Amino acid sequence: MQRILSTQLPAHVGTTVRLAGWVHRRRLLKSVAFLILRDAAGLAQVVVAAPALREQVEALTEETVVEVVATVVASPTAPAGAEVVEPTVRPLGPPAVAPPFDLYRPALTATLPTQLDHAATALRHPSRSAALRISAAAVSGFRATLDEQGFVEVHTPKVVASSTESGANVFALDWFGRPAYLAQSPQFYKQLMVGVFERVYEVGPVFRAEPHDTVRHLAQYTSLDVELGFVTDHRDVMAVLRGTLAGMVATVAERVGGALATLGVTVPEVPAEIPAVHFTDALKIAGAPADEPDLAPAHERALGEWALREHDSDFLFVTGYPMAKRPFYTHPDPARPAYSNGFDLLFRGVELVTGGQRLHRHADYLAALAARGEPVEPYAGYVDAFRHGMPPHGGFAIGLERFVARLTGAANVREVTAFPRDLHRLTP
Amino acid sequence: MQRILSTQLPAHVGTTVRLAGWVHRRRLLKSVAFLILRDAAGLAQVVVAAPALREQVEALTEETVVEVVATVVASPTAPAGAEVVEPTVRPLGPPAVAPPFDLYRPALTATLPTQLDHAATALRHPSRSAALRISAAAVSGFRATLDEQGFVEVHTPKVVASSTESGANVFALDWFGRPAYLAQSPQFYKQLMVGVFERVYEVGPVFRAEPHDTVRHLAQYTSLDVELGFVTDHRDVMAVLRGTLAGMVATVAERVGGALATLGVTVPEVPAEIPAVHFTDALKIAGAPADEPDLAPAHERALGEWALREHDSDFLFVTGYPMAKRPFYTHPDPARPAYSNGFDLLFRGVELVTGGQRLHRHADYLAALAARGEPVEPYAGYVDAFRHGMPPHGGFAIGLERFVARLTGAANVREVTAFPRDLHRLTP
Repeated sequence: MQRILSTQLPAHVGTTVRLAGWVHRRRLLKSVAFLILRDAAGLAQVVVAAPALREQVEALTEETVVEVVATVVASPTAPAGAEVVEPTVRPLGPPAVAPPFDLYRPALTATLPTQLDHAATALRHPSRSAALRISAAAVSGFRATLDEQGFVEVHTPKVVASSTESGANVFALDWFGRPAYLAQSPQFYKQLMVGVFERVYEVGPVFRAEPHDTVRHLAQYTSLDVELGFVTDHRDVMAVLRGTLAGMVATVAERVGGALATLGVTVPEVPAEIPAVHFTDALKIAGAPADEPDLAPAHERALGEWALREHDSDFLFVTGYPMAKRPFYTHPDPARPAYSNGFDLLFRGVELVTGGQRLHRHADYLAALAARGEPVEPYAGYVDAFRHGMPPHGGFAIGLERFVARLTGAANVREVTAFPRDLHRLTP
Repeated sequence: MQRILSTQLPAHVGTTVRLAGWVHRRRLLKSVAFLILRDAAGLAQVVVAAPALREQVEALTEETVVEVVATVVASPTAPAGAEVVEPTVRPLGPPAVAPPFDLYRPALTATLPTQLDHAATALRHPSRSAALRISAAAVSGFRATLDEQGFVEVHTPKVVASSTESGANVFALDWFGRPAYLAQSPQFYKQLMVGVFERVYEVGPVFRAEPHDTVRHLAQYTSLDVELGFVTDHRDVMAVLRGTLAGMVATVAERVGGALATLGVTVPEVPAEIPAVHFTDALKIAGAPADEPDLAPAHERALGEWALREHDSDFLFVTGYPMAKRPFYTHPDPARPAYSNGFDLLFRGVELVTGGQRLHRHADYLAALAARGEPVEPYAGYVDAFRHGMPPHGGFAIGLERFVARLTGAANVREVTAFPRDLHRLTP
């Protein structure tokens, strides 16, 4: 007999079916007992009447894996509008050891560190698994939107020979006896691949050895990277980002509505045109001094409130960040060279995406590195490629965990990460 | 004026269009000159008649990035059945330095090491970019097939605390002052996630510090990992693998027919049921001694020929590999415990996929480690999770680069990898 999922019960009323899953909970009343079975789709109520069966069910601890063959009857009070009766129950393994928290309660009451220590079981709780389902749907929407526009997915090295980009905050490793480093981003590779495919994206892990112990930082996170060529300036990049976000949000709404309902959240509307303010205006709106070189979190919050109030938008682009605060490969604003063609996207007052137009001329790279007093040599393989013809281009990177945390209202990115890695955590 | 791609020219005959791309080649004849423009979609022929323009084009070295505004005319002899005339040509950067090989010739004549040293430009050659397009389509088909069957995509840690799985061949790194290792596979994590979603997959980098300098080994490659719960045995896993391969091959055929044509290859047919032979029979077919513990490459080749001859199939499952040759988490064949419920899939006589049923009872893990004389401690976070109820499950892993190499007939996996990493190569 083919196994069916709990959500398929209503379509099988009056027939005998085979279910399988975890003992989510047992409710042992005086006259009757219920075994609540959890599977990939949801919950099924198994009615236990016969005394011998009841005795068997009493020994089946929560999380034990079982198979149930039973008859489906309609029941308006049961989870899916149907329940199963007269079951035979067959354990598919020994009785489970109870996890250090109850998975059947509406909320996980264990502290986050305890949950993370026991991630494999904590993730079974609907509140934790829902966030990961949303994450998967968001990435699927990301790829589908870009695929439709002729982007090609690439896979680039995660181990590199030089500690480029920031110099600090890299993980060092031993590569067959040679020093090497974990890649902090696919930035250089995705730019080079613009020379091949014009439009590329990558979904992959990036590594930051940042000694920050905050609710926003992970030492490994999943970066959604995009780069496209033949742009006029950063505004072409922003338009692609807008469409990508809309595709991500639409896919989440369409594919994992149940997960959104579990978390009690709705997806934001991505405006047809996301409002944009220049950095200098952003400082004024946030009430910051005109000579501030960057936006502090408080400024970002103020800007988020402004965008909602003035533009009814959860999203706000801030463009034209000062060149001094952006990486060396950033393209300056030709009209105001102290400011960049770089942008951030704020989502509900928090920075979610960084992007911009990049330099595309070899001479500009040499000048940019010289201006910062940096040698060319560690970047040679990257910078040299720009001698062979690169179009004007730009791109952006979305931190997946931060995106999902903001979408779901999670206070800590670790709540939406299966097995987080940080300053203190290297297991499980 | 909106830019169009070279392949869109036939739809614009009689109008003025804007093209952009790379100077692929110039053909300077006596009476007329042609500028062949390459963009993401293909080639466009630009007819250069005016003497001043010809002079300009003569200075535009190959690979220079240009924008062309011109009138489209039908031309049966031009690449796309149309060409453009009376152009204005605007360089979007300085003249390009010529790459160390001609990208406009039908084949790249440089040695593979030279190509890899200059990957960013070598990958522009159609023979190299076609393989990467096939790779992207294959992964897209992989995900789409699994998404349809309720699999959830996960992202797992690439840095782990113990050098598990093989002990040897791991890359060591410094994690905030603590020893850590690059993950050799997401094996343990995907198994744990079966407890959460029942069916999961991951596409991500894996790292093997294998000191092999062969045409089949990379130190970083892209692993397509699948794991599913509530299986009866390995045959359920093989059925999912069969469907996944069919989905990958169908997506390649459907989406990147041009890339297949460039490489002169056709996709294989995946039989509705892939033939399967038990390891003991495989030894007989290959003419190997009955006490051989594994299949050598020559045996695999013989089996590939047999499958084609006897079953008209490019694919062959070999099941029941001896337990002694499989990892400790492998589930034995209950009827013949010296043999496993593990399988390999051979594609054209080469191992392409490894998979099988895994142990799912905590006690079995303890026994398996004890039987191999291995301590439990390094595996504690993984093994302990099996106390909390895990269903019978299994899975498989496809090496993306090997798959694409076999599909395209590439002799070396490096030919189908954008920026390979191996014993000797850590750049670009």
